[in-house]
Amino acid sequence: MSSLGFHYVWDVYNCAFDAIALVSPVEKLMDDIIQSSSLTLIDKKFNQFAPHGVTGIYLLEESHLSAHSWPENGYIALDLFSCIALDDSTKIKNIIEDHLGQVRIEERKIERGIIG
Amino acid sequence: MSSLGFHYVWDVYNCAFDAIALVSPVEKLMDDIIQSSSLTLIDKKFNQFAPHGVTGIYLLEESHLSAHSWPENGYIALDLFSCIALDDSTKIKNIIEDHLGQVRIEERKIERGIIG
Repeated sequence: MSSLGFHYVWDVYNCAFDAIALVSPVEKLMDDIIQSSSLTLIDKKFNQFAPHGVTGIYLLEESHLSAHSWPENGYIALDLFSCIALDDSTKIKNIIEDHLGQVRIEERKIERGIIG
Repeated sequence: MSSLGFHYVWDVYNCAFDAIALVSPVEKLMDDIIQSSSLTLIDKKFNQFAPHGVTGIYLLEESHLSAHSWPENGYIALDLFSCIALDDSTKIKNIIEDHLGQVRIEERKIERGIIG
């Protein structure tokens, strides 16, 4: 048995409002995740909600990275779907903490497309 | 306790190769899911893999819809992340079957951003 897709889900609580309210800091976080994981960006799109809140979607050669933030609740949802398993998802958690500070991260890994 | 995001995961097996190999049929399926659910499309992006396989990402007012297909394995991964719960996810399963025929659908619903 093996899986075709590796889906990492990070629910991040206790975020500072300003860290997730606007596109700019969320984009920096997402860029850092991509660069640190040697993933290949094809295109990225953002939606800035008024007055605050962000959706970011990165189309990757390996699949996608998404972010959705609720600054009023101190919460951001991050998902990485990849056809290649991460060597070490702890690295991503460290990047999230580097950008967002003292947050609470709930990580799930979902194997997608079980074959064999 | 309530959740900020409603994340629907559909792992779809036993798909016909031609139904998921190229952008065109996958785009029609995704468009139909959006229209039937009264979701609001902001932008969409696709990647056509050579010789086959598709990534599709829809940026929605409500969050996102993604698709990743492995035609050689008869598998497509569909994810809908929405700030609004679907009235009835059975409708989506029916649309998937309308487009892809006799497939096996594994559905999961993940509540994202638990507050209160």
